[in-house]
Amino acid sequence: MQTIDIEQQILAKNDSLADQNRDWLARHRITAINLMSSPGSGKTTLLERTIREAGAERRICVIEGDQETLFDAERIRATGAPVLQVNTGAGCHLDADMLRRGVQALDPPDGSLLFVENVGNLVCPALFDLGESGKVVVISVTEGDEKPLKYPHMFAAADLIVINKLDLLPYVDFDINRCEKDAQSLNSGVQVLPLSAKTGAGMAAWYSWLQSPSRR
Amino acid sequence: MQTIDIEQQILAKNDSLADQNRDWLARHRITAINLMSSPGSGKTTLLERTIREAGAERRICVIEGDQETLFDAERIRATGAPVLQVNTGAGCHLDADMLRRGVQALDPPDGSLLFVENVGNLVCPALFDLGESGKVVVISVTEGDEKPLKYPHMFAAADLIVINKLDLLPYVDFDINRCEKDAQSLNSGVQVLPLSAKTGAGMAAWYSWLQSPSRR
Repeated sequence: MQTIDIEQQILAKNDSLADQNRDWLARHRITAINLMSSPGSGKTTLLERTIREAGAERRICVIEGDQETLFDAERIRATGAPVLQVNTGAGCHLDADMLRRGVQALDPPDGSLLFVENVGNLVCPALFDLGESGKVVVISVTEGDEKPLKYPHMFAAADLIVINKLDLLPYVDFDINRCEKDAQSLNSGVQVLPLSAKTGAGMAAWYSWLQSPSRR
Repeated sequence: MQTIDIEQQILAKNDSLADQNRDWLARHRITAINLMSSPGSGKTTLLERTIREAGAERRICVIEGDQETLFDAERIRATGAPVLQVNTGAGCHLDADMLRRGVQALDPPDGSLLFVENVGNLVCPALFDLGESGKVVVISVTEGDEKPLKYPHMFAAADLIVINKLDLLPYVDFDINRCEKDAQSLNSGVQVLPLSAKTGAGMAAWYSWLQSPSRR
């Protein structure tokens, strides 16, 4: 079917560019983390705290993906970290070519930690390899514990799953054990880290994971 | 550019099928409401309460869209309303052909109110006309008040914007006035209804809108 052939061509071209990104990042000892989630799960807040608390240890740079606005880049810039905003317009995800061009423009220093905050979307970004060192899926407790089974492609692609907004757990119905068990049924052995980027609870395990975020 | 041509062909074919849906729905006096949002904004909870509180007045049927699982259809079935689940697999939105086939299978009675709960995604569903009577975008207060400007296509396409999870407002930073003002800057005069599908606050205005949900 024509549509599928074209999709496969687009993905094959993306995968080839992703491999080039992976080689380039490895040569420059840059660890690139692709952060993916629904809109509003708290990815930017997680980055703000991470830069404040761990940015002295290792240089952190950020590429922000959004359909429109510079809001997230402005929040990151306020922390002092180098940041570049990529606007996708009608597009629903970042791709390997956007990362390539973003890295060229941002020029992250050798040995740095590069966060790539994808467009808020629990569907499309799962399909596109960027050449990253690790894929992190963030889900917040306000979104519902059944999301892994409803959006299985994203949770199957994850190297790490962060459950954010633990501070709101008392006010919502969200079973952390169910979410973790369902995610692991799609992605055997995947690590699941509950935390609150707002209060700081659980952040130690996140920093520990970032020290060796190898792909699964 | 080839990719754009193909996208235009897909959208043109979709729009033609959407027009056929619109004609069919009008002939059968069925009001079809397309509910769109991020994952976990509370669309299904809104439908559960709407069926319980307004289902005696007018027959309500539901088509549920999700990548995988029958979870949402099971929740609606428990209310007693006729429901059909459409699973999109890797797909990120419903389209007019899925609605056509869904309506054929569900066979909603003449004069009924048909809710179509789209795949949780604040990007892709905005592009696809289903032939619906009205597009409702749901945003919850946990997602952040800057979402209209970051995802402008969705908010520009809306006939009504529901701000859900008012019960969680005391625990998050969300400025309802900012959200409303930004949405109206993209979509002049669009009505914005804050409510809580969990507690029932604000539902009266929702039922009032449903009585004449004409497209903007």
